[in-house]
Amino acid sequence: MLILNNAEVTKLIDMRECIAALEDAYRELAHGRSVSAVNSDAITPGCLHDTIYQFKLNGGVIPNVGIAALRLDSDIIKREPRRQVKLALAPGGRYTGLIMLFSTETSEPLAIFPDGIVNPMRVAAASALGAKYLARPDSHTVALIGAGWQARSQVMAIVATHEVRVIRCYSPTAERRDAFCREMQHLTGVKMESCDSAERAVSGADIVLCATNTNETLFFARWLKPGMHVGTIRGAELEPAAVMQADVLAVHERKLSGASAVAKSVVLAKDRMAIPGVDIERLPTLPEIIAGMVPGRTTPQQISCFLNLRGIGLQFAAVGAVIYRKALAKGIGRELPTEWFTEDEVS
Amino acid sequence: MLILNNAEVTKLIDMRECIAALEDAYRELAHGRSVSAVNSDAITPGCLHDTIYQFKLNGGVIPNVGIAALRLDSDIIKREPRRQVKLALAPGGRYTGLIMLFSTETSEPLAIFPDGIVNPMRVAAASALGAKYLARPDSHTVALIGAGWQARSQVMAIVATHEVRVIRCYSPTAERRDAFCREMQHLTGVKMESCDSAERAVSGADIVLCATNTNETLFFARWLKPGMHVGTIRGAELEPAAVMQADVLAVHERKLSGASAVAKSVVLAKDRMAIPGVDIERLPTLPEIIAGMVPGRTTPQQISCFLNLRGIGLQFAAVGAVIYRKALAKGIGRELPTEWFTEDEVS
Repeated sequence: MLILNNAEVTKLIDMRECIAALEDAYRELAHGRSVSAVNSDAITPGCLHDTIYQFKLNGGVIPNVGIAALRLDSDIIKREPRRQVKLALAPGGRYTGLIMLFSTETSEPLAIFPDGIVNPMRVAAASALGAKYLARPDSHTVALIGAGWQARSQVMAIVATHEVRVIRCYSPTAERRDAFCREMQHLTGVKMESCDSAERAVSGADIVLCATNTNETLFFARWLKPGMHVGTIRGAELEPAAVMQADVLAVHERKLSGASAVAKSVVLAKDRMAIPGVDIERLPTLPEIIAGMVPGRTTPQQISCFLNLRGIGLQFAAVGAVIYRKALAKGIGRELPTEWFTEDEVS
Repeated sequence: MLILNNAEVTKLIDMRECIAALEDAYRELAHGRSVSAVNSDAITPGCLHDTIYQFKLNGGVIPNVGIAALRLDSDIIKREPRRQVKLALAPGGRYTGLIMLFSTETSEPLAIFPDGIVNPMRVAAASALGAKYLARPDSHTVALIGAGWQARSQVMAIVATHEVRVIRCYSPTAERRDAFCREMQHLTGVKMESCDSAERAVSGADIVLCATNTNETLFFARWLKPGMHVGTIRGAELEPAAVMQADVLAVHERKLSGASAVAKSVVLAKDRMAIPGVDIERLPTLPEIIAGMVPGRTTPQQISCFLNLRGIGLQFAAVGAVIYRKALAKGIGRELPTEWFTEDEVS
């Protein structure tokens, strides 16, 4: 049983490997050879005022890479009017999110590591795969709305799937946006332009990526142009009319929410994923498009839209398999006795 | 982060503590102050011929004991005509089933240990609570059908809730049944009688406990007597007419199966929990009865039946809280650095 930390995970996978692993896993999924566990959220009131405790379980099994993965989040969340903030209350001011890998050949636990690197990486990798199959291949100008950790990963992912010449970034705070642009230009070598409005960022863009933590509309239908591709990680980011006008529309997974179990006294916040008037369950999925079961974009003039609204537990198995294989090959991580995590009792 | 093994877990909890912990947790659940995560099963073909790989995730959160728990099973299962057999393919010929505890106050991981002791214990504790609230308090004669690991726990549990004078046990193999009776009589001090037919075991019993791994009917309606209580851990064990004739009928949880995700090529075995003609979703639950929201038995003549067909993830939080508290108090287990299982990345 291998224990890895985030610094090690960072060294063990890059965005191109992550995208390739997901692309393979999605093909397996579409053909019914791999599965995602049903996302489960268990939510109770938190101990502190105005907080909730959220216990999230995701999982997936991919037999052809021999891996089953659990992703578990134990989160204390403070609810603010326009967003939710996770509190770092674990010792040392830390968060608790874990990925655990198991062998489908022997059942044994193989590795455990935090989810903080993989989580935004797999979200962005799915967005970039959406763009790969739905956006024009000759898309060179990207608009990015957001300058947080999700936006950061979106940049790393889109430059891996497209020959991006410029990324025009908007987020409300100028200072933060400028710093983000400098950092990402340095990291990727791609020109980053800081824009003082979303509309300015979007103007002339081939691909628009919304990657924020907001409950408010950021992208409006009137900004759509023929040939444009729009991606979102929160349904609330897009004006519903913009989604309705897309000629090619796909969703990451048809189930919008997981199977929730919520304590009676918790009043859930508004679902930031739902898009009024859009029936997610009738849309084709990215895995179906990747597997060639449903067409993606067929003409350069089409407007396309990818709704990356909910993760698939299987992503953690796909990405975890790469990390585990490379950790073994490079001798990275701390080994614990596997028998600490197995048993001779059958039950 | 505490690592415990099964030998340590055995020392840290006994059946009375387990039953008491569940009773409290069920009251919290009925009042909407705690929740079970939605059981999730992800199933794919296994690597070996005629096997499946099953990745099971259960969980629960009980704020008043400060614990969230995951129970995870990574199982390779061989399907035989009349039963399913888990294969011990982890190194050393071992199985993989884990319970992991988290703090609802800080989010941090607290402990990880195998599930082999807790699993049958919590099943039997729920059955015994069913008997506590549904059987006659003056029940002294118990019939037990089965002599495996589930039956073993059922004995330990029923002697904790009732003043049992004799347990009349039937299972098909005489040698195994006799050995089981000798062992359980030695362990509990309660007289065990080995019976060569189920009907003989049931004759004169106040409480009948079916605890087998079969797909076949073991208990028939014609054996019912006024005042009798019947418990089952598999719907298939009872003739449906026996369930229909119960005056007081309750189920552990209304959802019969978890949220399953099954790879296309896997043909699922017959559901051994379903009882033809019985609509589980309309039955009262044990937690509701414990909380006094629904009456249990009201007269000595009633026939009662408890369908302990599916676990509740919350059981692992309830029992885990006791184990963790006592492990800390007694200084039992191996400590790993908590920061190996937490992170400073928010995601």
